[in-house]
Amino acid sequence: MDEERTVCESFQRAAQLVAKRWVPQIVWVLLGGGRRYSVLRDAIPEISDTLLSERLRELEDAGIVTRTVTPSTPVLIEYGLSERGRELANVMDGLSTWAERWAAVSA
Amino acid sequence: MDEERTVCESFQRAAQLVAKRWVPQIVWVLLGGGRRYSVLRDAIPEISDTLLSERLRELEDAGIVTRTVTPSTPVLIEYGLSERGRELANVMDGLSTWAERWAAVSA
Repeated sequence: MDEERTVCESFQRAAQLVAKRWVPQIVWVLLGGGRRYSVLRDAIPEISDTLLSERLRELEDAGIVTRTVTPSTPVLIEYGLSERGRELANVMDGLSTWAERWAAVSA
Repeated sequence: MDEERTVCESFQRAAQLVAKRWVPQIVWVLLGGGRRYSVLRDAIPEISDTLLSERLRELEDAGIVTRTVTPSTPVLIEYGLSERGRELANVMDGLSTWAERWAAVSA
């Protein structure tokens, strides 16, 4: 079963984007659909406004998160996932399954 | 398709363990089999000794990485994955597939 593995450049880039504090939580919530900022924040325990804003901006720059502005009164801003972001569903489902099995609160 | 999602405690814990700089790269290489420190380091571009040592210790504490010492001359130390660690294979395969599609170097 031994197989020599070297981290290639695309895996390295993907890991740098996704393996960051709060990113899985943000993507996980947005996989459920578009969310206003306050709803997103309330769905993620313990996240600070500073970090949530920073991560959303980074994920938008990376083409993973979309930001839709509706010019109503008041203006409605909704965060969602691009196709690129939605295709992280497998990764997040895998993490969720692993979490249930290995990161249960009683463990 | 809208589904209300809140991050549960086990997902939060799993994300805190896995969504950390260099963790996917370390787990990815070790999914190929046990490795000596120097081989592991050489398989991960740009990682520093300080961070690799720190992450290995954290992952050992989290029960994801195993450390096997063979009392030969010189002593042989090999890092590997526990069952808990090996079950991250789905997450890493998902990330690898996503990487090929969305994080290609030319993107």
